[in-house]
Amino acid sequence: MATALLTDLYELTMAASYLRRGMTGEAVFSLFVRRLPPRRGFLVAVGIESCLSHLESLRFEAADLAYLAQHGFRDDDLAAFEGLRFTGEVRAVEEGTVVFAEEPLLEVRAPLPEAQLVETLLLNQVTFPSAIASKAARCRLAAAGKVDLIEFGFRRTHGLDAGVAAARSAALVGFSATSNVEASRRFGIPPAGTMAHSYIEAFESELEAFRAYGRDFPDSATFLVDTYDTLAGVRNAITVIKELGLETRAAVRLDSGDLDRLSRQSRELLDGAGLDRVHIFVSGSLDEDRLGVLVAAGAPIDAAGLGTRLSTAADAPYLESVYKLVSYGGRPVAKLSAGKSTSPGAKQIFRDWRGGDRIGLASEPTPRGAEALLGVVMEAGRRVRPAPTPETALHAARVRFERDLSALPPMALELEDPAPLICSMTDDLRELTDRVQGHLRAGAPSPEDT
Amino acid sequence: MATALLTDLYELTMAASYLRRGMTGEAVFSLFVRRLPPRRGFLVAVGIESCLSHLESLRFEAADLAYLAQHGFRDDDLAAFEGLRFTGEVRAVEEGTVVFAEEPLLEVRAPLPEAQLVETLLLNQVTFPSAIASKAARCRLAAAGKVDLIEFGFRRTHGLDAGVAAARSAALVGFSATSNVEASRRFGIPPAGTMAHSYIEAFESELEAFRAYGRDFPDSATFLVDTYDTLAGVRNAITVIKELGLETRAAVRLDSGDLDRLSRQSRELLDGAGLDRVHIFVSGSLDEDRLGVLVAAGAPIDAAGLGTRLSTAADAPYLESVYKLVSYGGRPVAKLSAGKSTSPGAKQIFRDWRGGDRIGLASEPTPRGAEALLGVVMEAGRRVRPAPTPETALHAARVRFERDLSALPPMALELEDPAPLICSMTDDLRELTDRVQGHLRAGAPSPEDT
Repeated sequence: MATALLTDLYELTMAASYLRRGMTGEAVFSLFVRRLPPRRGFLVAVGIESCLSHLESLRFEAADLAYLAQHGFRDDDLAAFEGLRFTGEVRAVEEGTVVFAEEPLLEVRAPLPEAQLVETLLLNQVTFPSAIASKAARCRLAAAGKVDLIEFGFRRTHGLDAGVAAARSAALVGFSATSNVEASRRFGIPPAGTMAHSYIEAFESELEAFRAYGRDFPDSATFLVDTYDTLAGVRNAITVIKELGLETRAAVRLDSGDLDRLSRQSRELLDGAGLDRVHIFVSGSLDEDRLGVLVAAGAPIDAAGLGTRLSTAADAPYLESVYKLVSYGGRPVAKLSAGKSTSPGAKQIFRDWRGGDRIGLASEPTPRGAEALLGVVMEAGRRVRPAPTPETALHAARVRFERDLSALPPMALELEDPAPLICSMTDDLRELTDRVQGHLRAGAPSPEDT
Repeated sequence: MATALLTDLYELTMAASYLRRGMTGEAVFSLFVRRLPPRRGFLVAVGIESCLSHLESLRFEAADLAYLAQHGFRDDDLAAFEGLRFTGEVRAVEEGTVVFAEEPLLEVRAPLPEAQLVETLLLNQVTFPSAIASKAARCRLAAAGKVDLIEFGFRRTHGLDAGVAAARSAALVGFSATSNVEASRRFGIPPAGTMAHSYIEAFESELEAFRAYGRDFPDSATFLVDTYDTLAGVRNAITVIKELGLETRAAVRLDSGDLDRLSRQSRELLDGAGLDRVHIFVSGSLDEDRLGVLVAAGAPIDAAGLGTRLSTAADAPYLESVYKLVSYGGRPVAKLSAGKSTSPGAKQIFRDWRGGDRIGLASEPTPRGAEALLGVVMEAGRRVRPAPTPETALHAARVRFERDLSALPPMALELEDPAPLICSMTDDLRELTDRVQGHLRAGAPSPEDT
């Protein structure tokens, strides 16, 4: 589990500064994504469970304090840090919820030093898995229900943690399996794999390699056919499939070349040999665009392994996630920075698929027919419900995502030029924002409380 | 430390298959990057130390084996895995070495099952930190020695591990500090930070916030001036800097708006107040391109915080890294896959900055005037030198990088349209490649040994 030093230095200096002057009033921070990345019609909120686990375990160890003592922190800072725990409230959307720009995924209400300290950690734990789930959802849309999707990206993810998180995010939005064995174990995602070119090369011939693998793993025999000559590879696979009686269990995998043409030629060879139940699996630098082209062209592919480009979210490897103070000591606050202004106050998302979402104040009643998306998940630093098992949490997130996906308007599902759901502010939030920003523009940075 | 399940499933099935049939002959795998990402004139090899640590600790725990027992592995597979350790040799370039496409960063020589098993882990541990170091080196070039660079990306890196690794990679190529406290502690990188907008907003006024921070952290007082009105913020900073006598220690930070114009206006205000030693720090979606524009325009900036776009390598978030079998049981092997063919045999890079690199066979003598870049770092599964401390390893890598950077031809240092060093094959490697690939094309996948 993370240590309290897995953070940016300024969180610690600010927290120390607050503590020194007794600025421990209640703060509310709102975590949201400023803008959707290019070509995204929606985002999928992931990482909430991980945030809660980190918040529950936040504490400074002796070694942490010893390090800070060398970097400008005083004894009274260290004493305060030593006893510091996260004691606040968290409101969040359910994992798997579809969200849009400026909609809070999570809000923290806690004494200011605690709420500030956890900024880096919360952003870190939400941003990447949400980016991958949002990308993976596009891959699922590109597959159009015709292609089984497997996550394959572990070798080039940004570290080991990232590989496990990417596999989880992909499974959350509908990938059926992952190559990542640890993610499989941890979250109960079916593990999947084929063979590498090295396996073929290690044998005297491709045919011998296929025979060996088919004998060893008859229930998951996916023959990689492109090491030397793809169609000759398919013919070798056919030989072995028949020899070993794998007609209903085997597949061939195409990993290079013109996948559209090769998949059709492979299908023809397989069908001609009476192997119409042998599947065709494709891989090799696939993403939603390349997969979408294959599917739209009617290439006869049954399954696809999506690796690097999915699991690094290669076209948009980050979200513009932010964690902004919206209230302190009952005083709503905002900033005016060019292009980055914020609106004040603890918020709620009132979802209405037909009328469009409304972002309002947390204190407002939920309009008739709308769903309030943020719910209390942590009180006084403890989860309001026992921590789910990793498998249970993933299952719940999948259920939520499926529900939201089925409700999303078709325009938001477009891959190329999507139109997100319309999100507007409620009158109350608009009025408060205008008032606070107006005060600030007039050089009166402390409007009266509301 | 990682478990043996932090891998792709197929590494385990292939290893089991090899073990079942006694295919434990010596294999050589070569880890290299197929092509440089767009706009990269060179790569910086990072992650080698981490690979060695993982190799030394590779083992299957009882829980790992119990999991595998449920997924198609037999008792004899599990018994073999239980006793499996990495017992091979590793040859690698020094961390921090500049490399080019197709040049092996690392080669493993080990019994086939061991060498295969570690593929995913080695690729994972090399790819991301090398991608970030290569990106960060471009930022350094853009800074042109005029701007102090701070790594700021932790909040949006692909997880916590990635944040720590990104900070290390940036420091390796010349960043002077990081906001990441854990990376600072682990690697001895100076920690740095300023304040967030929330700090300003938590006080009744910007002026009060600046006063408080300046009193609390007079030696690292960087005032964030853009929360409400940037130039008014600079004036408030001037007031506080004079009040508190911070003339030689303070800085102002610009985080939004037109950084070129605002930095000039801020400089003018500061100089006009006699504060010519107060630095200007800029941040906000910076990367080598945006920084380069500011520097080229002569914007008066002293330091820059580079975050998300650097630490996710946003324009090229992965390298086309691969780990390819090049020899098994003394037999050189290759693949012919379209666009992904490989050349056989254990290799060496013969570096000659003037004549261009030559990739040759490991068995070839080093040509006069060239440096052989791959050296033995692990024998019989143990490092040939004691593991360096994290700080020592980083220092050594920095020294190596500085040496290579100073030798790189100017064309490779171009940011927009760089020309990498010319890399060619030695005659011996060319001859072997032609022979093995020729055999394979002729359908004789088992050429005689060499």
